[in-house]
Amino acid sequence: MKKIAIGIDIGGTNTIIGIVDKQGNILQKASLFTKRYKKVNHFVDELSNKLNVLFNKINKEYQLKGIGIGAPNANFYKGTIENAPNLKWKGIIPLAKMMQEKLNVPVWLTNDANAAALGEMLYGGAKNMKDFLFITLGTGLGSGIVSNGKLICGHDGFAGEIGHTIVVENGRLCGCGRKGCLETYASASGIKRSVIELLSKTNKASVLRDVNNSKISSKLIYESAKKGDIISLEAFNFTAKILGKALANSVAHTSPEAIFLFGGLANAEDLLLKPVKESMEANLFNIYKNKVQILPSQLKGGKAAILGASALVWTENKKA
Amino acid sequence: MKKIAIGIDIGGTNTIIGIVDKQGNILQKASLFTKRYKKVNHFVDELSNKLNVLFNKINKEYQLKGIGIGAPNANFYKGTIENAPNLKWKGIIPLAKMMQEKLNVPVWLTNDANAAALGEMLYGGAKNMKDFLFITLGTGLGSGIVSNGKLICGHDGFAGEIGHTIVVENGRLCGCGRKGCLETYASASGIKRSVIELLSKTNKASVLRDVNNSKISSKLIYESAKKGDIISLEAFNFTAKILGKALANSVAHTSPEAIFLFGGLANAEDLLLKPVKESMEANLFNIYKNKVQILPSQLKGGKAAILGASALVWTENKKA
Repeated sequence: MKKIAIGIDIGGTNTIIGIVDKQGNILQKASLFTKRYKKVNHFVDELSNKLNVLFNKINKEYQLKGIGIGAPNANFYKGTIENAPNLKWKGIIPLAKMMQEKLNVPVWLTNDANAAALGEMLYGGAKNMKDFLFITLGTGLGSGIVSNGKLICGHDGFAGEIGHTIVVENGRLCGCGRKGCLETYASASGIKRSVIELLSKTNKASVLRDVNNSKISSKLIYESAKKGDIISLEAFNFTAKILGKALANSVAHTSPEAIFLFGGLANAEDLLLKPVKESMEANLFNIYKNKVQILPSQLKGGKAAILGASALVWTENKKA
Repeated sequence: MKKIAIGIDIGGTNTIIGIVDKQGNILQKASLFTKRYKKVNHFVDELSNKLNVLFNKINKEYQLKGIGIGAPNANFYKGTIENAPNLKWKGIIPLAKMMQEKLNVPVWLTNDANAAALGEMLYGGAKNMKDFLFITLGTGLGSGIVSNGKLICGHDGFAGEIGHTIVVENGRLCGCGRKGCLETYASASGIKRSVIELLSKTNKASVLRDVNNSKISSKLIYESAKKGDIISLEAFNFTAKILGKALANSVAHTSPEAIFLFGGLANAEDLLLKPVKESMEANLFNIYKNKVQILPSQLKGGKAAILGASALVWTENKKA
């Protein structure tokens, strides 16, 4: 019988689920509108229903080895979601236990960036690596740290929050309530803030001066930069400089072989990856210089979240 | 037969060696003047001679399980010392191989702070911990990171250089050639620089105004602070503030249960540990608040280096 796993990625808006084999093929997938479920038990009921529908679609000759879930504020050790600001379910949600009781298979839970890091190790560019960082540049900045072939979870299950290292003294206000967190600079929303700051601070011409602030997106900044818009190019350089500096400090902790960048911004190879590498090298302690690669994630598009979550099953279930 | 290990700590000035049992008792010890040996093979010859003398002093009923060495710029994977600025032996020194050939037992090598972190785990305050940081506040700032019960070595064997994270933009010139490294602030030499800076920037009275700059030491600053000297107290507070902030960023990487401080400065409990904890808490990302202890190392005095180095044998030799 072919071994399969379920990968679930819970986002504030949507939840996507998939049935995945060990080679990383997504055999079936579906999605739920997370926001619709005010009570988590209704969400779990519907998730189970959807999974049963998916199971009925595939060949019976499969053996389910477990469920991996990527979720915000996920505690790896306890299998709980704890006080996630972008979910409706408040307090501590024992999601792994709830799913386990419903489907009678082992369930593992970690935050989405940690799950994606495992996906990169099993199916992406980190296949032969034991020490790497994985950085997601989305609305915020998420990170997963793999050291000696294992995800670093920390004593409480919450390790790997490089987006919330403080990189600018008295810097930008962060959603977490502090100032100067890396994610207020290096993220889709961070680069947007940088553009608005640059528009206010200089008189340089920019196509973005004719766009409402609320319409300025990282995608638009990328497209403008590609066309040579100076403010957009400066925003990319500024983002890369701060990110490269922060990564130099991260390297001094776990000395990774490579740093994978994931998400919309990470696709801007020449605009972002090259200057990030330059800034990191300029700030690296000597013994680490010219040793650490900056690479775009090889997990492609919509597949990443499901593959990452399912990777938890293959790395954690010793019988899989 | 009782199992024993050899612990060796190689410093720029002195090398200390000891025979240690698994319970952390130092059965025999000796030392060498590192600087005397211009060629590393002469050093290795003399080290072996000294070890043979020590062996002859102990009961024959012991079984030697290996040698652990703590050394500057040590590469854990290769067993080499690489371009250590404070040693006379230049280039890449295959010390583990040289010792192994001489004594025919397995040899492990890592940097002194990493070795001490293992010592803390086996014999000190981290006995029941799997995730902690170990910080040595000596002339510089060394660090060892333990995650999930294992030392983080990184892909190249050089992980754990928190002393060389840049914490102040365009800050103090560091011995490594960059500016603003943590160790230029948080170390014995760092606090001395802070005192001299404070003496120059303010007109406040201080007993240290009557001391030659070259005579101002961290010990003297500690003693003056204890007597209420304002400049010395301010220097401690400034050191603690910067160290606490830097540690908050480190916590966001590996989420440790505790951070152990070791070395002369770390003995200044109320003057340093308390304000370090306060500064760290003020800068921690919410999910880590009130979870991370700041503790003085339980490895006492001259024993630490030997115990730490010998701990490598017990953690790495699976048959020990």
